[in-house]
Amino acid sequence: MGRMTQSPRKRPTSFDVAHLAGVSQSTVSRALAGSPSITEATRNRVMAAAAELDYLVDERAARLRRGTTSTLAVVVLRRPEDTVRSANPFYQELLYSVCEAAATRQLDTLVSLQSDDGDLSGRYVEQGQADGLVVIGSPTNVRAWEYFHELEADTSYDSPDTIGHAAYWGTPHEDMRWVRADNATGGRLAVRHLTDAGYRSIAYAGSDGNVQQQFRERHEGYLAEMADRGLAPRMIAVDQDSSREDQGRAAADAVLAAGDVDAMFVACDRMALGVLDRLSGLGTNVPGDIGVVGFDGMGAGRFSNPPLSTIEPDLAAAGKMLVDAAIDGVAQADGVRVPVRYVARSSVRSE
Amino acid sequence: MGRMTQSPRKRPTSFDVAHLAGVSQSTVSRALAGSPSITEATRNRVMAAAAELDYLVDERAARLRRGTTSTLAVVVLRRPEDTVRSANPFYQELLYSVCEAAATRQLDTLVSLQSDDGDLSGRYVEQGQADGLVVIGSPTNVRAWEYFHELEADTSYDSPDTIGHAAYWGTPHEDMRWVRADNATGGRLAVRHLTDAGYRSIAYAGSDGNVQQQFRERHEGYLAEMADRGLAPRMIAVDQDSSREDQGRAAADAVLAAGDVDAMFVACDRMALGVLDRLSGLGTNVPGDIGVVGFDGMGAGRFSNPPLSTIEPDLAAAGKMLVDAAIDGVAQADGVRVPVRYVARSSVRSE
Repeated sequence: MGRMTQSPRKRPTSFDVAHLAGVSQSTVSRALAGSPSITEATRNRVMAAAAELDYLVDERAARLRRGTTSTLAVVVLRRPEDTVRSANPFYQELLYSVCEAAATRQLDTLVSLQSDDGDLSGRYVEQGQADGLVVIGSPTNVRAWEYFHELEADTSYDSPDTIGHAAYWGTPHEDMRWVRADNATGGRLAVRHLTDAGYRSIAYAGSDGNVQQQFRERHEGYLAEMADRGLAPRMIAVDQDSSREDQGRAAADAVLAAGDVDAMFVACDRMALGVLDRLSGLGTNVPGDIGVVGFDGMGAGRFSNPPLSTIEPDLAAAGKMLVDAAIDGVAQADGVRVPVRYVARSSVRSE
Repeated sequence: MGRMTQSPRKRPTSFDVAHLAGVSQSTVSRALAGSPSITEATRNRVMAAAAELDYLVDERAARLRRGTTSTLAVVVLRRPEDTVRSANPFYQELLYSVCEAAATRQLDTLVSLQSDDGDLSGRYVEQGQADGLVVIGSPTNVRAWEYFHELEADTSYDSPDTIGHAAYWGTPHEDMRWVRADNATGGRLAVRHLTDAGYRSIAYAGSDGNVQQQFRERHEGYLAEMADRGLAPRMIAVDQDSSREDQGRAAADAVLAAGDVDAMFVACDRMALGVLDRLSGLGTNVPGDIGVVGFDGMGAGRFSNPPLSTIEPDLAAAGKMLVDAAIDGVAQADGVRVPVRYVARSSVRSE
């Protein structure tokens, strides 16, 4: 009932705690911060007074005593040249999904944007700042992935509790705990829906993925499904040095120049939006003359001309898989696959 | 040179530190965690051994001693019904922009997604978890904003250092430190570019903003510029209960039914994308018959049919303004405005 004697809006201060405990305010501060210069007896008296007054205890000190952080560390690898407007929105959505999955588990997320050319850091769990680590990036962040690969291989940790509490999106290293879209199934689904709609000369636009193994896997799924259906594969290789949209525009030009392609499975939505932009600009009938399927489920595909059929990874599942693997820990570095689905829009004829 | 006697990949453990300091491993743990049961002399011996071995000190304990967190707390208010795919991408971009501005200042961000119907918390600075607080939400998160409003009004803090270290995007309370797009200028810019392109009967589609004061300000800018040019304003009010896209579709229907409107300034891009979707579906010539300008600078507008002219707030500036206000602190609750610019695309005739 002690706290009812003051206004409910007036919060107790460390001076109130000091007065009740019979010590100075600086002793209260040091005692609650866990300073070694304060004796156990004094600290206990201060803690009792703080509890009596419902005084807000420093959360860091409290967590330090509890031995848990209630925090997930999330590192987002970015390219130094990216701006918030030019960056791939997929990574922003994935970051949001991870924060959401963490919130469901009552975890805050300690987010750090890092670049290949900057100082890299990932020892959040060992340093006691987080209970697990999620790293999100593109395989093109080569130096950063090497850093995290070495960090994970560096098993001379003080405690086995810090091993395995990490999960990675976009790593090119197969022996790390990766979470990745079911790219091969996506490639198969694209071919399946295009052939069911009557298309036969279906080209893959993208790369076969020396760096982007996500693209390689999509291409492999495409190849497997084409083979199963007795169809001849076609590769429209794109120039890796231009923007995704410009890669798509160039792929559209190549398809029109070839003259005998009636559908395109495009490695990612940003590239597919460039394809649609060029085809609509040239008056090509999509889906009548050419059908187009992308990959990613980007929001912009709902409003493109025409709206873009796409393979959509389950982003909510992706966030949950990353958080669960990082927090619950994993015994070994097996990867896990995020399910994908085909989203039918009007860039493909009705089946 | 001591550390060169072991492999560079083998990191020292707390047992190595204990051995060198001549104490038990548990003493090392407690000493480094700042436990009050360890004497100052023992702690100094352990710290010297840890430094000698380049042992990784618990970062929380180190920060506790330093008295700074190198962390910015970011609360994102969400609607419980939102999914990562359905949520307004603007907030995901703004979150990313805040993380980026924080990274520029060598700060990590402690991100917490919170809902109106969940437990709200914002005492990160007082609890020693962060040096400042940024809250991002929509004015429709009514209960959450009331919580943060009371939190800010609760000035009986222990230390004046914790006052003013917060900044807010989307608060409906004018006496909080808000950061907001220069909405009125945006409304004026839209009218200016539409009239320069020859449109005269320009309607505003949206609400006049009892809840969404960002919309009210955009409407006020529209009204002021229309008045300056001697043009009669028109309001196409939207039904607040449907999705933004459907609000836009309904606004397009209303404009076609009216028959004498030749341009629309639409309160936000998602609504404007719904307008374009309906108009292109009905074969209306945009920009020939009707010109359309949105507001937000959403990426999807680059690929819509036709690409959407829009008022784009400078998102990088928004993130920097929020971070600077929260970290540097502010003496009073003045708001600050994020600059906007007109992005010309083909939903408006050439001027």
